[in-house]
Amino acid sequence: MSVIKTKIINDAVHGFITIPNQFLLQLMDHPYFQRLRRIKQLGLTDWVYPNAVHTRFSHALGAMFLYHQSIINLRQKGVKITEQEKIAGLCAIMMHDIGHGPFSHALENSIVSRLNHEEISMIFMNRINQEMDGELDMAISIFEGSYKKPFLHQLIHGQLDVDRMDYLRRDSFFTGVSEGVIGTQRIVKMMNVVDNQLVVEAKGIYSIENFLSSRRIMYWQVYLHKTVVAAEYLLMNILKRARHLVLNGGDVFASPALLYFLENQVEKSDFLEDEQVLNHFADLDDVDILGAIKVWQNHSDQTLSILSKSLINRSLFHVEFQEKPFTQEYVYQLKIAASKLYNVNIEEASYLVFTDSASNEEYNQISNQIKILENDQTVKNLDEVSQFFHYKALTQRVTRYFLCFPKALRYES
Amino acid sequence: MSVIKTKIINDAVHGFITIPNQFLLQLMDHPYFQRLRRIKQLGLTDWVYPNAVHTRFSHALGAMFLYHQSIINLRQKGVKITEQEKIAGLCAIMMHDIGHGPFSHALENSIVSRLNHEEISMIFMNRINQEMDGELDMAISIFEGSYKKPFLHQLIHGQLDVDRMDYLRRDSFFTGVSEGVIGTQRIVKMMNVVDNQLVVEAKGIYSIENFLSSRRIMYWQVYLHKTVVAAEYLLMNILKRARHLVLNGGDVFASPALLYFLENQVEKSDFLEDEQVLNHFADLDDVDILGAIKVWQNHSDQTLSILSKSLINRSLFHVEFQEKPFTQEYVYQLKIAASKLYNVNIEEASYLVFTDSASNEEYNQISNQIKILENDQTVKNLDEVSQFFHYKALTQRVTRYFLCFPKALRYES
Amino acid sequence: MSVIKTKIINDAVHGFITIPNQFLLQLMDHPYFQRLRRIKQLGLTDWVYPNAVHTRFSHALGAMFLYHQSIINLRQKGVKITEQEKIAGLCAIMMHDIGHGPFSHALENSIVSRLNHEEISMIFMNRINQEMDGELDMAISIFEGSYKKPFLHQLIHGQLDVDRMDYLRRDSFFTGVSEGVIGTQRIVKMMNVVDNQLVVEAKGIYSIENFLSSRRIMYWQVYLHKTVVAAEYLLMNILKRARHLVLNGGDVFASPALLYFLENQVEKSDFLEDEQVLNHFADLDDVDILGAIKVWQNHSDQTLSILSKSLINRSLFHVEFQEKPFTQEYVYQLKIAASKLYNVNIEEASYLVFTDSASNEEYNQISNQIKILENDQTVKNLDEVSQFFHYKALTQRVTRYFLCFPKALRYES
Amino acid sequence: MSVIKTKIINDAVHGFITIPNQFLLQLMDHPYFQRLRRIKQLGLTDWVYPNAVHTRFSHALGAMFLYHQSIINLRQKGVKITEQEKIAGLCAIMMHDIGHGPFSHALENSIVSRLNHEEISMIFMNRINQEMDGELDMAISIFEGSYKKPFLHQLIHGQLDVDRMDYLRRDSFFTGVSEGVIGTQRIVKMMNVVDNQLVVEAKGIYSIENFLSSRRIMYWQVYLHKTVVAAEYLLMNILKRARHLVLNGGDVFASPALLYFLENQVEKSDFLEDEQVLNHFADLDDVDILGAIKVWQNHSDQTLSILSKSLINRSLFHVEFQEKPFTQEYVYQLKIAASKLYNVNIEEASYLVFTDSASNEEYNQISNQIKILENDQTVKNLDEVSQFFHYKALTQRVTRYFLCFPKALRYES
Repeated sequence: MSVIKTKIINDAVHGFITIPNQFLLQLMDHPYFQRLRRIKQLGLTDWVYPNAVHTRFSHALGAMFLYHQSIINLRQKGVKITEQEKIAGLCAIMMHDIGHGPFSHALENSIVSRLNHEEISMIFMNRINQEMDGELDMAISIFEGSYKKPFLHQLIHGQLDVDRMDYLRRDSFFTGVSEGVIGTQRIVKMMNVVDNQLVVEAKGIYSIENFLSSRRIMYWQVYLHKTVVAAEYLLMNILKRARHLVLNGGDVFASPALLYFLENQVEKSDFLEDEQVLNHFADLDDVDILGAIKVWQNHSDQTLSILSKSLINRSLFHVEFQEKPFTQEYVYQLKIAASKLYNVNIEEASYLVFTDSASNEEYNQISNQIKILENDQTVKNLDEVSQFFHYKALTQRVTRYFLCFPKALRYES
Repeated sequence: MSVIKTKIINDAVHGFITIPNQFLLQLMDHPYFQRLRRIKQLGLTDWVYPNAVHTRFSHALGAMFLYHQSIINLRQKGVKITEQEKIAGLCAIMMHDIGHGPFSHALENSIVSRLNHEEISMIFMNRINQEMDGELDMAISIFEGSYKKPFLHQLIHGQLDVDRMDYLRRDSFFTGVSEGVIGTQRIVKMMNVVDNQLVVEAKGIYSIENFLSSRRIMYWQVYLHKTVVAAEYLLMNILKRARHLVLNGGDVFASPALLYFLENQVEKSDFLEDEQVLNHFADLDDVDILGAIKVWQNHSDQTLSILSKSLINRSLFHVEFQEKPFTQEYVYQLKIAASKLYNVNIEEASYLVFTDSASNEEYNQISNQIKILENDQTVKNLDEVSQFFHYKALTQRVTRYFLCFPKALRYES
Repeated sequence: MSVIKTKIINDAVHGFITIPNQFLLQLMDHPYFQRLRRIKQLGLTDWVYPNAVHTRFSHALGAMFLYHQSIINLRQKGVKITEQEKIAGLCAIMMHDIGHGPFSHALENSIVSRLNHEEISMIFMNRINQEMDGELDMAISIFEGSYKKPFLHQLIHGQLDVDRMDYLRRDSFFTGVSEGVIGTQRIVKMMNVVDNQLVVEAKGIYSIENFLSSRRIMYWQVYLHKTVVAAEYLLMNILKRARHLVLNGGDVFASPALLYFLENQVEKSDFLEDEQVLNHFADLDDVDILGAIKVWQNHSDQTLSILSKSLINRSLFHVEFQEKPFTQEYVYQLKIAASKLYNVNIEEASYLVFTDSASNEEYNQISNQIKILENDQTVKNLDEVSQFFHYKALTQRVTRYFLCFPKALRYES
Repeated sequence: MSVIKTKIINDAVHGFITIPNQFLLQLMDHPYFQRLRRIKQLGLTDWVYPNAVHTRFSHALGAMFLYHQSIINLRQKGVKITEQEKIAGLCAIMMHDIGHGPFSHALENSIVSRLNHEEISMIFMNRINQEMDGELDMAISIFEGSYKKPFLHQLIHGQLDVDRMDYLRRDSFFTGVSEGVIGTQRIVKMMNVVDNQLVVEAKGIYSIENFLSSRRIMYWQVYLHKTVVAAEYLLMNILKRARHLVLNGGDVFASPALLYFLENQVEKSDFLEDEQVLNHFADLDDVDILGAIKVWQNHSDQTLSILSKSLINRSLFHVEFQEKPFTQEYVYQLKIAASKLYNVNIEEASYLVFTDSASNEEYNQISNQIKILENDQTVKNLDEVSQFFHYKALTQRVTRYFLCFPKALRYES
């Protein structure tokens, strides 16, 4: 009997996580993956929940752990999964978020154009696959969903995947929002495979309902918390203003990687055409963004300086939330007031007074397709089986409008 | 500054629980309250969840802890609560379940006629109040709901009371059904009082939704678990059979307290007319029931013996669950088979083959009346504010029919 | 690939526990094992820690879980363990406490003569083995320590066995004494086997030190808590008094099983000579003891009645603890006072005023033999490697003397 | 009854933390305090324990919470503490670590000369006190230990202070080293004051022993983990090399704050003489350090580049640990090898091959002075009361020598 070389990592959420083979260890040590240590999972959320500074690195390991548990469970139920498929699946889940940039939401809306992080993940994976002479071929086909056993893909990205399961449990743990806890162990045990599709056994239905309810509490209490949303828009405006200055010949402190993205408007096609783009992107993390903004506090451009100070010192803007758009007139009056108070022009004032909307859309789009395996072996959609939820409500886009402006204006306007 | 004499109790669920004054300590030491140490909170549920052997005693202390936390929170919000009212409220919540008998569900359907445990609690409280020269007057009026500040009563028995909050959290903890965890700390902090009525502030709405979802998972996964329901009916039939034998002159081993209730059909009025009835009831706990059934395994009445062995050794009956009643024909055929197999008459076979229904009714009756305090200070019903749930579904009576019979019959019939 | 039939049990301490095969399931369902559901792990400790009502049943399952984890870890390190050995080891650990009686300490010092629960476990195992046609042969040889791979026995009963590991963690969990938590996962991972002996790898030394420190906190804070010790002696005296009455022809309410042990002074040899003795013992659990004492509260023998009321209502005796024996004179004076106050003779008064000693002996006898595997592959004793502890102190017998008497005497004497 | 304005913060470790008044809120919002959000509590420890990225900000809040709990407990025991003293104490504990720089250990040994973070904390506090017109006078005298009630200072910095209590519990939580858990609640409850000195009541002695044992496991398993120690020395060498280049006219990317400290050798006296020094220091955090090193990976100085890549990509050096110093000869041979392999001179090779020692000194210096309040009201030192530990061992300086060099050299030398 031979000794299998493994590595054990202490995880505060799941306990001991075993990296089950050398290849995965090698992948984990790749600079592209190590970079996730410097990207917080929840961006600016720690301004409301101070312990929520956990990283995408630990989420990736946690999701890999749950994938592994799921494989063990499915094999026990007689589902055939080869060793090679197991390792490939573990590689795929480990890298599923490798394409995330720092503060994704803010970044994608300011200095890079609509970068879909899953597409970037794919580009990263292909690059690593080249370096590794095709060893990731099967992992990539599982990640893409083209592999012949769809359930291996559905575990990563599906109705009820280990990605969501880990991040809900992890985010609940570190924010301290204890009621967000989901029954990961029970859900994993209730998974099964029918016709190569992932299903949940009927007696797991209450755990699924609770999973959906916990997800709901997490997005309104955490992910779409108004202070967090406002902070992200502040960050977005900071980056937009900095780029505006750069493009107009201003001198702006930045790391080389950040400077590249301030100077160039990068699109998806650029990643494919010029491999340097990915290199620059791989150099970019939370440190570049925060490092620059700290210096920008003292920039001669008053708009950039005001915004940067506000973010760094957490003297956040006043936020108003409501269910319909704010009137143009109201917003305009605030901009006039800001322009007077700070002695800036109306265009600059638009960085200080801003309105937009937040929606739960991305969190609920596919929730109603969870498949339930009934005791009579038929497979049904969750909404046919559970009468608990308003499915329309669950999957409905809820939009809330917010308006942010410096607190000083409350007393001026 | 004087030293306040307090007692600290280690609670696995809430941490340290302080008994804040001498009077409460005295109450806690009363034999009527100590008796709750010998009554399990969840009856026979430990046959499915082996750690769920926690007692009504620890639940009462936990509920008192949450009541205390609620008082502290409300006072911080400016709600006036005198020291006397606080102590009276703590007494009331501590004794809210004092009237429970052992294995309540089974008992109430077999040897005592429809005993409402809240009415018995009241009789107990009045008895103690007499002993204590009226020191519990205010506690009793809070418990009854007649005290001038209704919110003090609503905290004990209302839309969202500390009774439910403690038992959901506690039962989740000991069963290990982790997704049943509710955010007790957050809910307590979100409570407020408007016009002397308990309300929950609007930003607590997601915690409330999660509370309702957790309650749902707990009742289907735990409280109405089919094995538990079947075990309770088994226990009920055992007690019915034993009483039948007693009333027909049979010799049945039992403690004096249990024997009293086997020999006499006690009703509510009896408690009021004869004070000995309460004394007998106060002597009855889990130990009397289990102690007798253990001996009954070897009783000469075969029906009693079969049923008792099945319960003690957890060789439970076969259970079938379905959404409509079982046909009389099917049940009758099984009884015939049982009567043949065990060589008993058809009347005796009815103890071995039994059908009834379980419903979630008691768990959901008042859930839709939780009052939400909106940011504009208006008070609304939860269902006007939250679009998450099917309120009808939540409050709807769901009935499931079950049929139990000895496993041996599966191969016979 | 075939489906393995397993059962999953929700454990509040370790999460999901899998019973990995049919044979273990069958063993778990045996009435002798189910009986452990009615024996609390910590006897009367719930009088100080109200949640500590967990049973020997759940401890047995938890220890089995840790044994299984240990096997998995050792196999990963290349230690050869066959499937048959694994199952045999799991059977052995599951039944390691099957010989415990109710309230062991009290019972062993009153109505049964020095019953070593491990010897009784062996008798139980042999009986079951007979029923099962020798299927437990290997399990028994592992339990006894005669099997050719001693480490399989050392995991059950050794320097650092899964029995201790489970009960420390479990008792810490249910008492709420959180600092008693030990790093079970880490210790399991650090185990290895050299020359068929169990060792702990050097880097696990701090976890071992912490294990010893936690054990120490648990025994002084919990196992030898003065209120618990006093309650146990009270129980012992109750049983002694009841037997005295029985042997003198008194009429004493008791279940048949308890009555048998009150009427007969049973010794180890009796178990071997008369198989009925084991049957009676198997019928005895917490319920018999408490059920009788409840009734004895109203016994005409005043001594028995006083003692029984005290135990049932938790109006415990006054306890004094000191490091040397109490003087005969002091004890005698108290007995005189008791005899006057309660109008009993001096012999009866000896049941009410009693003194003895408690020692940590059984908890520390073998702690200094934990074997450490150094990085250079040599094996050393823990005390050669760790300079942290006074090993003498750790292994030293600490004796504390206590004296108990009715609280009323404090004001009389 | 008026409404007290408070803020509640969700803490993953202690639950809800209340900031009990406006002044503390104002202090919390000060940029000097907000800066602690960008300084990790455990520096580079997350390279071994990936979740240990928690910040000095959350530790400060946690310690404040425990200080508050301690005050409440002491008041209940009759210790007189005025509201003003309470708030002053809370201010002092909140700011106790405000003088920490990023990666303290590495920084203090490279670019700033022996900066004692407590002295810097004091300078910060005085600066804020000036801004706030002396409102922190009492807080400062408590922090310094000059206030007339020494126990208020001892709670912050003493034998058993809330600083240590929070960081042990918090570091245990985030690293996942569960056996490091200490009984904070119990220790807080056991505190008392005699002659204005903090003492622990005798029955808390086992919790104290466990606290010392947990501290020990935490420093060897976490704080002095060899990979962490090696990473810190790597960081130190990087900063030394960068400063060397700067002082020799090299062009080195850095934020203005970092550049200031690379260009100037700052000592304590400088802080007092030039108030700009504190301003620069207040601008420095983890972001400046990591942001620079990321860029330095591509610096033309090969030594700086090698070191920086190693740190950023976590391709850490080989580490050897032993109990005596490494021979000069061995180290010299490795330097020669490094100089050949990397084509650098022997002075540059000294950055790549380095040896030093780590000791537990700072963690144990005052542990033996914990005062125990015996039941007879005398006060004794812990080592007079507890026979558990080798006090010499506990307080003894343990030194371990390590040697680090690039892994490539293992195969070369």
